[in-house]
Amino acid sequence: MNALIILAHGSRRAESNQEVVSLTEAVNAISNQEYSIIEYAYLELAEPGLLQSIDNVIVQGALNITVFPYFLNSGNHVKRDIPAIIETASVKYPDCDFNVSTFIGMHRDIPGLILELARMK
Amino acid sequence: MNALIILAHGSRRAESNQEVVSLTEAVNAISNQEYSIIEYAYLELAEPGLLQSIDNVIVQGALNITVFPYFLNSGNHVKRDIPAIIETASVKYPDCDFNVSTFIGMHRDIPGLILELARMK
Repeated sequence: MNALIILAHGSRRAESNQEVVSLTEAVNAISNQEYSIIEYAYLELAEPGLLQSIDNVIVQGALNITVFPYFLNSGNHVKRDIPAIIETASVKYPDCDFNVSTFIGMHRDIPGLILELARMK
Repeated sequence: MNALIILAHGSRRAESNQEVVSLTEAVNAISNQEYSIIEYAYLELAEPGLLQSIDNVIVQGALNITVFPYFLNSGNHVKRDIPAIIETASVKYPDCDFNVSTFIGMHRDIPGLILELARMK
């Protein structure tokens, strides 16, 4: 049983956090059952946090968890904070396989998406 | 003369800020001269800041500036901080036309990009 956790930064604005919920629903809708569970989590300022989200999917039976950093650049959150939490989770759940995927900002299509949105104004 | 400023959050990590420089080069490479000038700026933690970048492109002759928020969600940076800086710039440069485009997280392709990157692990 595999799980995907979309990990966003989190915001003080509820509307911003709600976008992550909607995004997770959109990913789920096009995922063609590729993952048994698709969840979201926030690194800061909102709940569930990443460890809590990991607890949740493991309770549901996940043995293989992919954490997707919904971040644009490889700042300290991506390079330091997320690996530290995954290390903690790996110790807590030694039988679960954890993967952290490339963050969204690294996708090759991003430059084209920028020009497209900028054109719409 | 028009300009596009890609506005990223900014990081304490130089490598993270360098990604924004590379991204700007990548956008420029595929832009087919749609903009006379394509620049980058950081909201925090790195330079040039947005006002400094606006000064730079206006010195180069820009009369129409599109600011692209390279942000994933509509948090306080997008909803409060960026509009406040644009208001300041509009007062300073009343003859320049400023537009703030939709932030990158709103692009409809983002859910598919997430699944694609997550699959690569």
